[in-house]
Amino acid sequence: MPEKRPIITLLTDFGTQDYFVSSVKGVILSINPNAELVDITHEIPPQDIFTAALTLLNACSVFPRFTTHLAVVDPGVGSSRRPILVMTDNYNFIGPDNGIFSYIYQYEEVNKVIHIKAEHYYRTPVSSTFHARDIFAPIAGWLSKGIESSNMGDEIEDYMRFTPPLPREFSPSAIRGHIIHVDRFGNCITNITPKELTEERMSLNKILVVNEYQITRFCTHYAECPEGEVCALFGSAGFLELSTPKGSAAHVLGANRGTEVTLHFAAQQ
Amino acid sequence: MPEKRPIITLLTDFGTQDYFVSSVKGVILSINPNAELVDITHEIPPQDIFTAALTLLNACSVFPRFTTHLAVVDPGVGSSRRPILVMTDNYNFIGPDNGIFSYIYQYEEVNKVIHIKAEHYYRTPVSSTFHARDIFAPIAGWLSKGIESSNMGDEIEDYMRFTPPLPREFSPSAIRGHIIHVDRFGNCITNITPKELTEERMSLNKILVVNEYQITRFCTHYAECPEGEVCALFGSAGFLELSTPKGSAAHVLGANRGTEVTLHFAAQQ
Amino acid sequence: MPEKRPIITLLTDFGTQDYFVSSVKGVILSINPNAELVDITHEIPPQDIFTAALTLLNACSVFPRFTTHLAVVDPGVGSSRRPILVMTDNYNFIGPDNGIFSYIYQYEEVNKVIHIKAEHYYRTPVSSTFHARDIFAPIAGWLSKGIESSNMGDEIEDYMRFTPPLPREFSPSAIRGHIIHVDRFGNCITNITPKELTEERMSLNKILVVNEYQITRFCTHYAECPEGEVCALFGSAGFLELSTPKGSAAHVLGANRGTEVTLHFAAQQ
Repeated sequence: MPEKRPIITLLTDFGTQDYFVSSVKGVILSINPNAELVDITHEIPPQDIFTAALTLLNACSVFPRFTTHLAVVDPGVGSSRRPILVMTDNYNFIGPDNGIFSYIYQYEEVNKVIHIKAEHYYRTPVSSTFHARDIFAPIAGWLSKGIESSNMGDEIEDYMRFTPPLPREFSPSAIRGHIIHVDRFGNCITNITPKELTEERMSLNKILVVNEYQITRFCTHYAECPEGEVCALFGSAGFLELSTPKGSAAHVLGANRGTEVTLHFAAQQ
Repeated sequence: MPEKRPIITLLTDFGTQDYFVSSVKGVILSINPNAELVDITHEIPPQDIFTAALTLLNACSVFPRFTTHLAVVDPGVGSSRRPILVMTDNYNFIGPDNGIFSYIYQYEEVNKVIHIKAEHYYRTPVSSTFHARDIFAPIAGWLSKGIESSNMGDEIEDYMRFTPPLPREFSPSAIRGHIIHVDRFGNCITNITPKELTEERMSLNKILVVNEYQITRFCTHYAECPEGEVCALFGSAGFLELSTPKGSAAHVLGANRGTEVTLHFAAQQ
Repeated sequence: MPEKRPIITLLTDFGTQDYFVSSVKGVILSINPNAELVDITHEIPPQDIFTAALTLLNACSVFPRFTTHLAVVDPGVGSSRRPILVMTDNYNFIGPDNGIFSYIYQYEEVNKVIHIKAEHYYRTPVSSTFHARDIFAPIAGWLSKGIESSNMGDEIEDYMRFTPPLPREFSPSAIRGHIIHVDRFGNCITNITPKELTEERMSLNKILVVNEYQITRFCTHYAECPEGEVCALFGSAGFLELSTPKGSAAHVLGANRGTEVTLHFAAQQ
């Protein structure tokens, strides 16, 4: 059931220097002038589906129920990759079927995935290079006006997904993960969650090794960490992250996305 | 006739780090709290009127009828250059009379150009350095409330325009154009349109020469182009563009805005 | 008294590549779907409270009365620094008590500063690293729905403030200030205002010295300054700024934020 002022969020790799994002917005507003458009980001590195998937996961869940999330990072635009609509208990997600919703499949309750085929809703002629404007935006616009999802196409099961990278048990007393994102502040977000770093393990002595650096300070607030030191803490999105006050942990650690991190546990002595 | 929720788009070279853009928005919302503001971009290179004109052309036409487009790249702010209102069948354009609407004059049906003189609508005192906030924003705000354009000033004919750069016939079997824009993905947009590269010519053998590079692959979709190769295709804005999958064509070709491109035709053999 | 479509502005150092800003917006819209969100900027240099304070001053005053300004540059997030609500005749300001409102205290009429303690309005659990989402955004949302400020906490007097840097009298015939900001165009904004550079002094011969450069041209419009020369003029925010046509004054002068400027006066000869 659409709201009076339905929210549509936008996540792309289009950048903000060109006309691309505004075209998507113009199309949506032409269909539904009451739509409320909210940018998640347009600064996903070009064609980086993984970062898009992770950012979408982190962003989506604070929005009101029935929000539509439009996510387009689409290196295969114009190929045979399918446009899809993913429906969860709370949200609609619209974008290409290229793995961009993999984290959503992992963490949200998915009710239905629809292969969008309702060409009569498309902007015509459909450009071969800009489906965000000509396919995804109109579908988002019409959905927000209350058109039933069943009119958009057929349900599919074989949608594309990658397995979000999980830490692995590295030894009886260690797990190994890696850095999946570095944010603007240089905080290094790892793929370690409370599922791996359980409360029991949290109570042990811990050393987290990144390159030549050993982190022994596990905090709950940035402010607990002394200046000049790097600490580990669970960040706002639920992943263990590495941070240093008033500086860039990525810089201090010489770490990037992909850098391995190994977390050793030992009984308290 | 203004809509209930009139759309005003914004295109500037103000960047997003300063307070400039928000000032324009604050002034508009103070006059018309129902205005719906949509950013086209604020990342036009400082004082680059040409890129502003081209981006505006590419962005404007997907917006609903009666949208007001505010476009301010204004190296002559505070000089005698005039503030103008350009009215087409579909849109109002507001900005400085410095050529920023040249592509609009070329591609849209212009009904009237008005030299804005309605000082009683301005924000006072008018800053000598920030007409976007003090002149253009208030005029957009009042127009969106339904004030007649005839109250804004007098019609003029001698507005400033540059001739958008067109490809030229270079030989009986070749045309020469140049790259007018490089987008975020490194796609190189040329000034060649279907008007020059007609269907008849499209059916011939074609070689497009850029620097030392010869492009023979003319595609309709990005996805048709093999990785590692550069192809030519008509992009979402109707210009022939040069593109390479998962990479930057500008980088591969060593091309920038201004780089010449020569397109040779030969009968099929 | 809240408006039907209450405006909430956002000023942060979060950048636009991550999910941070959208999370703040999602939380506000979940509480008050009618809120109208306007970005001031999210490009404040990380943890640069001074630039945030200055930008907020420059941006806030064009917004309609009763606008709520949310300003979060918060190196002390998770520490004991207090969340506060600053109420002036015209606006509400919400953010951390770390000096970010210092220019507001200086230039606006402050009625009340409240230490926010209304935890029942917070998003729970409150993340230790993201109070913008979990504390400031909900408070802004509820305020915009008409919840009385008196429900948010207790009035305080000992809020943190820095003294905005003022020029000093350097000799009987000179004042010395410094550059407090360099904008996107390379304009150098000094801390000299009409209060120091009075009309009387304005009528004298003036030389403004920056590094090895002597500026003698005092203009009222950018356009009065010949190309290749740097001029001084009062900018749109009321500070004396140094500017050069179609170029970066910062580059020409070799100046940065912090660079000293000395303004000498001499009677007309």
